Amino acid sequence: MVDVPVALLGYGTVGSAVDRLLQDNADDIERATGHRLRVVRALVRDPARERPFSPQLGVLATDFAAIRDDPSVAVVAEVMGGIDPTGGYVLELLRAGKPVVSANKQLIAREGAELFRAASEAGVQLRFEASVCAAIPVVKVLREALVVSNVHRILGIVNGTTNFVLTEMEGGAGYEEALAEAQRQGFAEADPTEDVSGADAAAKMAILATVAFGSRVTLADVGYDGIEGVTREHVAAAREMEMVVRLIGAASLVDGKLDVRVGPALVDRHHPLAAVEGAFNAIMLQGDAIREITLEGPGAGGMETASAVVADMVSVIGTTGTGFLQNDACWRTLERLPPGRLRSPHYIRFDVDDRAGVLADVASRLAGQSVSVARLVQHQTDGAATLHVVTHEAAAGNVEAALAEIAGLPEMRAAPTALPVVSDRGVAGLGWR
Amino acid sequence: MVDVPVALLGYGTVGSAVDRLLQDNADDIERATGHRLRVVRALVRDPARERPFSPQLGVLATDFAAIRDDPSVAVVAEVMGGIDPTGGYVLELLRAGKPVVSANKQLIAREGAELFRAASEAGVQLRFEASVCAAIPVVKVLREALVVSNVHRILGIVNGTTNFVLTEMEGGAGYEEALAEAQRQGFAEADPTEDVSGADAAAKMAILATVAFGSRVTLADVGYDGIEGVTREHVAAAREMEMVVRLIGAASLVDGKLDVRVGPALVDRHHPLAAVEGAFNAIMLQGDAIREITLEGPGAGGMETASAVVADMVSVIGTTGTGFLQNDACWRTLERLPPGRLRSPHYIRFDVDDRAGVLADVASRLAGQSVSVARLVQHQTDGAATLHVVTHEAAAGNVEAALAEIAGLPEMRAAPTALPVVSDRGVAGLGWR
Repeated sequence: MVDVPVALLGYGTVGSAVDRLLQDNADDIERATGHRLRVVRALVRDPARERPFSPQLGVLATDFAAIRDDPSVAVVAEVMGGIDPTGGYVLELLRAGKPVVSANKQLIAREGAELFRAASEAGVQLRFEASVCAAIPVVKVLREALVVSNVHRILGIVNGTTNFVLTEMEGGAGYEEALAEAQRQGFAEADPTEDVSGADAAAKMAILATVAFGSRVTLADVGYDGIEGVTREHVAAAREMEMVVRLIGAASLVDGKLDVRVGPALVDRHHPLAAVEGAFNAIMLQGDAIREITLEGPGAGGMETASAVVADMVSVIGTTGTGFLQNDACWRTLERLPPGRLRSPHYIRFDVDDRAGVLADVASRLAGQSVSVARLVQHQTDGAATLHVVTHEAAAGNVEAALAEIAGLPEMRAAPTALPVVSDRGVAGLGWR
Repeated sequence: MVDVPVALLGYGTVGSAVDRLLQDNADDIERATGHRLRVVRALVRDPARERPFSPQLGVLATDFAAIRDDPSVAVVAEVMGGIDPTGGYVLELLRAGKPVVSANKQLIAREGAELFRAASEAGVQLRFEASVCAAIPVVKVLREALVVSNVHRILGIVNGTTNFVLTEMEGGAGYEEALAEAQRQGFAEADPTEDVSGADAAAKMAILATVAFGSRVTLADVGYDGIEGVTREHVAAAREMEMVVRLIGAASLVDGKLDVRVGPALVDRHHPLAAVEGAFNAIMLQGDAIREITLEGPGAGGMETASAVVADMVSVIGTTGTGFLQNDACWRTLERLPPGRLRSPHYIRFDVDDRAGVLADVASRLAGQSVSVARLVQHQTDGAATLHVVTHEAAAGNVEAALAEIAGLPEMRAAPTALPVVSDRGVAGLGWR
């Protein structure tokens, strides 16, 4: 098999980049795999529209059935996005025995169960590397390189928009100002809700947790917070403690139960994730045999996404009828860890009256919930004080319970706020490292 | 094929860890690939010796031919190390039609050409992920995920011993003291020459450059310097410029010519490689479609190496008769870039008499070789001064020529010294990023 006809659903930024990469790198692909992939058909709504890269004559088509029913098409890349009609198309292709590669995070996160079942029943592959963090090959690494590593925790910066905003805030900008800059530079949408709310990161973490832990994790299983509440004060307090603020996706397997969440966290300056700046993404995989492996790179972009789509297409062609099973990762059903059981160090900010006994009051309430203080910085101004506390590792539920008690103390000027801490050497031997 | 008999050459730290991982994770492997790999024979010199993990009865054997001639053995992992007799064994196995997985950096770097030729002729795979940076899956990522990325530069911290020593020196230790600490903690050998001289890193960069650029790079093609000459003063000067000292392996493709080298360099604090601390390794791959992807993790360790060996064995079994061509990466012969042509910013230290006109003298000699100054820090003490200069991007040869001229100036108290700089935002838009 040297000449391999392939098809695309969609021919926008990513689709045209896939076509271009396949043409420009045909020799490289043939050397690596023995095959030459050639786009013979691409499904579009309007073939007459201007395109960033012109397809060969006769490639653009409006008839989905012509792709589904073309026996020469060896693999189809879904790069049109959306759930409907995309999900139906992918299902029909799989049922027709066509391997599919998808760049569609929402589709895989929402309808993965049904799609993978169809793929398994038809005995064809459904690959989805491009659906998570573009060109960063985290799915391939999880499924093929770390097959004996028992990955039990994933810590990730999986949204470039929010990381850009938080990095800008380190330079002194406020949240609104940093977001406006991200929009100006094209790193944030006009409506940034999906990104800044943590929803985009949550979908990616659901996919990664499903692959790593072999148990279905849907969007509904992922608790998430965004960065809308992160202030200059958080960033400044983090700096003072030699930490930075990052939006962290964390998937953990604890005593056979899973916990997947997304939210702002303080990250120790020496932790690899603290070094991830601007719109970059990084994923740290922690496992038994490997300790930890971190993958970093651009998490978005048309060409970057197309590169992952092409790698998946080439992998499908290179392993058809053999190779790694690329379909449903799920083989067990794990319970969710009860909320509040996940342990990490925490950063807590207390705004208090500056008078004797306050610190003792706070510390004793923390201790009453088995939360012990690792580091403390205190700032005084005009009868008021701000306590910045980093705790040793403690269950989130215990921290919440202590804060609820402390919030009722008369010397509190505002409700205390807490963020988890991703630490390395900062809090000796503890935390999400 | 469910039950897959495999064999090992060697049953030391790595070999016994491979056996253990295969046994402990047999279910995971079967789920991922449909196969159960089982060690049926392991070549050792002394079957009676105590082992860290006890093999099953009858596995240990002293007769190489029994492994080579056993038709049931589907893949052999070479984890015995050394060149002789190892190279001969691997050659015989390949010629006998057995796929081989090797963890042997020196063997692949030195005898790769002959071994890959034998593998191709026999139509079997020779995989070598574990030969470079243990469990970090850089070979798989280069060969399978980045197949259309035209990787044109690799920047790596590929030796954990030297990175540990340099990180210790950041904490204030001198070179000898830091090396002794590395030895005490088991990160350096009693005779550390292979590591601190840069030779170990050079072998790894030769393998990575061969895979990335498709042209044979042997040890003889890699110029290398070690860290023996790195002083507290280098580390202090780097800190003052917001940089750190790292032993950097750099493989570059410039105008169709290649340059592979290893040596100490200053790395901008915001560069991903600056965040790599202790005995960890990291490899940054720069390419067209991906911009840059960085892989970080432990670069050594018995279990980590075994994890990569197992992943390769599983990959062989999963792709036999199809899949990515895993053999000789070389399909072209690239010329070497003439020495001195490689461009980067440089750090230069000048020890001079502290009098008027010295800076002008130095700057004009630099300018005469098209080397322009980006940043300057000057320290005065008792009639003497030290100039720490970071240049804009310049060809190494031009920097050398300027320094040769400057060394002859009467106001120089010592020969000026230079190191390349790996920069990010530090020197705007320039350098090895």
